[in-house]
Amino acid sequence: MNLDVGVIGATGMVGQRFISLLTDHPWFNLTALAASERSAGKKYSEAANWVLDTEMPESVRDIEVVETQPGFEADIIFSALPSNIAREVEPKFAEQGYTVASNASAYRMAEDVPLLIPEVNPEHIDLIDIQRENRGWDGAIITNPNCSSIILTLPVTPIAREFGIKNLRVATLQAVSGAGYTGVPSMAIVDNVIPYIGGEEDKVETEIQKMLGDLQNGEIKHKDFKIKATCNRVPVIDGHLENLWIELEEKPELEEIKKTMNNFQGEPQKLDLPTAPKQPVIVREENDRPQSRLDRNKQKGMAVTAGRIRGDEEIQMTILGHNTIRGAAGASILNAELLAKKQKI
Amino acid sequence: MNLDVGVIGATGMVGQRFISLLTDHPWFNLTALAASERSAGKKYSEAANWVLDTEMPESVRDIEVVETQPGFEADIIFSALPSNIAREVEPKFAEQGYTVASNASAYRMAEDVPLLIPEVNPEHIDLIDIQRENRGWDGAIITNPNCSSIILTLPVTPIAREFGIKNLRVATLQAVSGAGYTGVPSMAIVDNVIPYIGGEEDKVETEIQKMLGDLQNGEIKHKDFKIKATCNRVPVIDGHLENLWIELEEKPELEEIKKTMNNFQGEPQKLDLPTAPKQPVIVREENDRPQSRLDRNKQKGMAVTAGRIRGDEEIQMTILGHNTIRGAAGASILNAELLAKKQKI
Amino acid sequence: MNLDVGVIGATGMVGQRFISLLTDHPWFNLTALAASERSAGKKYSEAANWVLDTEMPESVRDIEVVETQPGFEADIIFSALPSNIAREVEPKFAEQGYTVASNASAYRMAEDVPLLIPEVNPEHIDLIDIQRENRGWDGAIITNPNCSSIILTLPVTPIAREFGIKNLRVATLQAVSGAGYTGVPSMAIVDNVIPYIGGEEDKVETEIQKMLGDLQNGEIKHKDFKIKATCNRVPVIDGHLENLWIELEEKPELEEIKKTMNNFQGEPQKLDLPTAPKQPVIVREENDRPQSRLDRNKQKGMAVTAGRIRGDEEIQMTILGHNTIRGAAGASILNAELLAKKQKI
Amino acid sequence: MNLDVGVIGATGMVGQRFISLLTDHPWFNLTALAASERSAGKKYSEAANWVLDTEMPESVRDIEVVETQPGFEADIIFSALPSNIAREVEPKFAEQGYTVASNASAYRMAEDVPLLIPEVNPEHIDLIDIQRENRGWDGAIITNPNCSSIILTLPVTPIAREFGIKNLRVATLQAVSGAGYTGVPSMAIVDNVIPYIGGEEDKVETEIQKMLGDLQNGEIKHKDFKIKATCNRVPVIDGHLENLWIELEEKPELEEIKKTMNNFQGEPQKLDLPTAPKQPVIVREENDRPQSRLDRNKQKGMAVTAGRIRGDEEIQMTILGHNTIRGAAGASILNAELLAKKQKI
Repeated sequence: MNLDVGVIGATGMVGQRFISLLTDHPWFNLTALAASERSAGKKYSEAANWVLDTEMPESVRDIEVVETQPGFEADIIFSALPSNIAREVEPKFAEQGYTVASNASAYRMAEDVPLLIPEVNPEHIDLIDIQRENRGWDGAIITNPNCSSIILTLPVTPIAREFGIKNLRVATLQAVSGAGYTGVPSMAIVDNVIPYIGGEEDKVETEIQKMLGDLQNGEIKHKDFKIKATCNRVPVIDGHLENLWIELEEKPELEEIKKTMNNFQGEPQKLDLPTAPKQPVIVREENDRPQSRLDRNKQKGMAVTAGRIRGDEEIQMTILGHNTIRGAAGASILNAELLAKKQKI
Repeated sequence: MNLDVGVIGATGMVGQRFISLLTDHPWFNLTALAASERSAGKKYSEAANWVLDTEMPESVRDIEVVETQPGFEADIIFSALPSNIAREVEPKFAEQGYTVASNASAYRMAEDVPLLIPEVNPEHIDLIDIQRENRGWDGAIITNPNCSSIILTLPVTPIAREFGIKNLRVATLQAVSGAGYTGVPSMAIVDNVIPYIGGEEDKVETEIQKMLGDLQNGEIKHKDFKIKATCNRVPVIDGHLENLWIELEEKPELEEIKKTMNNFQGEPQKLDLPTAPKQPVIVREENDRPQSRLDRNKQKGMAVTAGRIRGDEEIQMTILGHNTIRGAAGASILNAELLAKKQKI
Repeated sequence: MNLDVGVIGATGMVGQRFISLLTDHPWFNLTALAASERSAGKKYSEAANWVLDTEMPESVRDIEVVETQPGFEADIIFSALPSNIAREVEPKFAEQGYTVASNASAYRMAEDVPLLIPEVNPEHIDLIDIQRENRGWDGAIITNPNCSSIILTLPVTPIAREFGIKNLRVATLQAVSGAGYTGVPSMAIVDNVIPYIGGEEDKVETEIQKMLGDLQNGEIKHKDFKIKATCNRVPVIDGHLENLWIELEEKPELEEIKKTMNNFQGEPQKLDLPTAPKQPVIVREENDRPQSRLDRNKQKGMAVTAGRIRGDEEIQMTILGHNTIRGAAGASILNAELLAKKQKI
Repeated sequence: MNLDVGVIGATGMVGQRFISLLTDHPWFNLTALAASERSAGKKYSEAANWVLDTEMPESVRDIEVVETQPGFEADIIFSALPSNIAREVEPKFAEQGYTVASNASAYRMAEDVPLLIPEVNPEHIDLIDIQRENRGWDGAIITNPNCSSIILTLPVTPIAREFGIKNLRVATLQAVSGAGYTGVPSMAIVDNVIPYIGGEEDKVETEIQKMLGDLQNGEIKHKDFKIKATCNRVPVIDGHLENLWIELEEKPELEEIKKTMNNFQGEPQKLDLPTAPKQPVIVREENDRPQSRLDRNKQKGMAVTAGRIRGDEEIQMTILGHNTIRGAAGASILNAELLAKKQKI
């Protein structure tokens, strides 16, 4: 497999994560970097203020940044655009035949756009055919969920399938990187917790329903259970931690639940996709795990760690994942890998 | 009113909060400071490593620290002892006629010991008579709840009374001061969240039941509703923030709930006790409040702030209080003020 | 004394500090709040995102914000404007007869503008007469130094006077509030140190020379000694800490140096100005003081704390002050108090 | 090369760094882990509270921890002991024929013990022969300097050699990991700077003199120049940042200085030792580098990054290194690699 790929919104923090994860990718050849007019025409090393704690890859330093519009060569476009810009720009790319793997929220809930976690609902990629027909596109848009939704959906999916979920409550303790590089001023968060993240609770409460839904006759019937989320911002760089209360339809032993989570495997593992974690959900037995700093990088940041599993009729647990890898750039790349393998590009 | 008071466990962080709040107290005259053998005989200024961001009060610098055993003159003893030591020592004081207002957990759940929040269950002080009879003491032990329990119980009490509570879920985001000065190493919490606090969830799940219970025929009949707590430690100095999901028996309008909370008044307000906050529960309308750093010092740290009140059949909200003032030293002092006013000392 | 005062740049963080310190001021009556066009016409409570950990004073909530141009009634204008805007706007106010007490850097180094710390160079206010003559103004501009410069100059002044300074090296560890509310993203500073603050080292290296200079024949002859500064940003909310190496002309005993600093008094103390700290420089003997969080609020944030004084031919010490009180808003207010008392307004 | 090695003090944080760096080492085979009596007899996975953000290596989980005394098989012992215990225990191992590569300070300044940075003073290993003769040992003790000293000495060495140093002033901004896992309570450092680290300044001011000294007739003649250090603790997990003022004997161009630092190579590079960084000192041109979080892991944590190089007669710069890798465990391992290669074991 050998595909040319580009990143739009390449200078921001998620854009940098895309670049970092795509460097030395076995299938994807990163050839195009697009950003705002202000950056276009500059070398990437001049246009971007690199903020990751690994160095900017040598291979992208001299790439000339182009404007965010169709015209450059690429089979797949990874979109790290803000949602309002994504809404306008992504369809233009899809129309011109590009496959857009988007981290933006703009089209996540559109009826004919797959909202995809390859371990969870790989069959939803069939929506692409309907999308193309509907919209007359040669390309397509596929999306990954909000960071908190992905981290929630991965461990919840095997539980939902095995034991049924009636009701879910979740409190999130989210890292500052989730808001982008300048999103959270230090004055706002040092020695503090902010009990609100605009729009986040709504995404957490609705996206999982679509992903766990069945694709029937070209439509996704959303799964029907209630979620009530509360989202907090905490002084942590990377890693979203979530406390869950899950009311189950059945009453399994805790050991069964743990086993179900530890053994959860999906298409990415079966197909051995390059970015797939060997074990997507890791259950820890220690009382004090998962912790944000200690567990966010498990399996190169692509696994979700779960711990403190307890309860009986209602199960409680705490989960954690890396919000800009599994929850953003890594998620889009895994989506694209699935499409490539399934010859949907 | 003019009573001599002492602090046992005077050199630790809660001990320092006691001293800080008792300096210039209109009724209580701080005369005795007790600590471990190692400190006994030294001046307080030499024995204590003062860690508050206000200076050590001049009036205590030269007080000679005594050992933690009966013998010094005081009407009331404030106990900032660790629970295992409190278990042994507090009864000795009570036996010798001292009134012990304890922040320790050792006797909180004892049947004949009041677990008191003066706004919530002032009538429980009548247990003291039974306690004295049972144990043959001249003095008595009264306790205040765990910091997270107090902060939870204050805003929940008016709701429980007006609308009934069936079920309560709570996620806490707790400050490091709750573990004592050396309790949480910086290596453990900088850029991190710890999803576990030993013993805390059990306290949160049981103490409120006792406080909301009725005292009948000398016994407290614990209130019967379910609580499921998850306790997290976050990188914040002071202030415990809690996310609540409350299933009510009735379905009030949100405005009714807010009004009930804002208008909540109890004995401390009626009796105008010196440490009583004018408004024990403050409802904020802004989306992003309460915040730990911005709201922990409201009403000298004695008020709980509530915000983000939403929902219908199930109410969600976020609350915040100062864990070492309203949640510890200030709580014990308010208890003692109530006893003094009610002539129970 | 009773003067009407206004704040320009009133919605920002330093503007909020001005408001907080001017509420209940015994001489100054806060009547006007000016901000950008976007805020003009709104109530202050709607225009400002209040970020201090005390509440917005009731008395300003309903004041209608005006645009930042002459026209409103006030004897003194406190300027919390960014330097580039201050450069244009402040002269317009001075021309119209207002006395502008500015925290901006725009005119600090102008030859006919006093750069003032009332304890250090109160006689420099005589420059106002020259300024008025030069520029044909009825009003005037007076400035206070950069936050790091003030905190440095206060303890260094008595040493320079008594023992002479040949050479000064300083490393600053500066709080994030120094950059304004959105100045330092949390992504940039959590678990990090930034070894650079734009323009800061130059200010620290030149402003003190002007303040310690002599006013002769209407001109300030800058003091001649060398300073080499390095400025770092650290994850602290408020409080700039500075490590000093001072080569002296004389070789005093350490005790003499401490005594000189502890006893330092200036015009604000003699005149008992309302915002004056009783003791502008406080020497601590403990090894581990001053600390940012513990010492920044000494004397309502108007005192500088010094500690770790050691050395012989070259003296080392560490100093600390509150950067937005003594280093900004409080500094401007003390300047205005001096002018008012000296009848220069 | 194939040598059996052990770690004493294996359960602490530096011990964990040793284990992490020794796993999969091409020459050293980690066979023994020693700790206090309390841990002896347990599996390592039960004895140690693993705190690094990588997982405990599988290969050590089942190793049975032994007591810290000679008796187990190993050619080299890496010592992560506290200094007071090291003082007693390390000689016992050396007497029994073990080579002790120690991170403890106990014997650093002993006349016949090499204080070694392999890039700086590899010839000092010849002291081992004198040490053996003096003390009648079959084994030996070699030491690495204090973390702040190593990070300082690496970039300063090429400058000292090329241009001569008259005088050096250094302010350190040190990470909390330098004090061990429980060394700095979170209450002490969140939103704070502590301006003092016990014993640290003395080490920084004396160790470099020994390392830059000449070994003549079996004695090290310490280099003679003055250092004045101030050491601060900041809220950072890993990475010590240092601000330097260096008075040179010559007046080189800044470009010459940078080139000298960038080109600095020593024995570890020439001998291609397994743990040697390819470039021990990396000069950055950006204004705002080095930063603690972004640069501490350069070259697997074994390189020191320097930036902000400026000045003329006196040079200023800021440097940064990883305190528990280059400044502790990695330093000891590199020392042992040098000895092994030079057949001194």
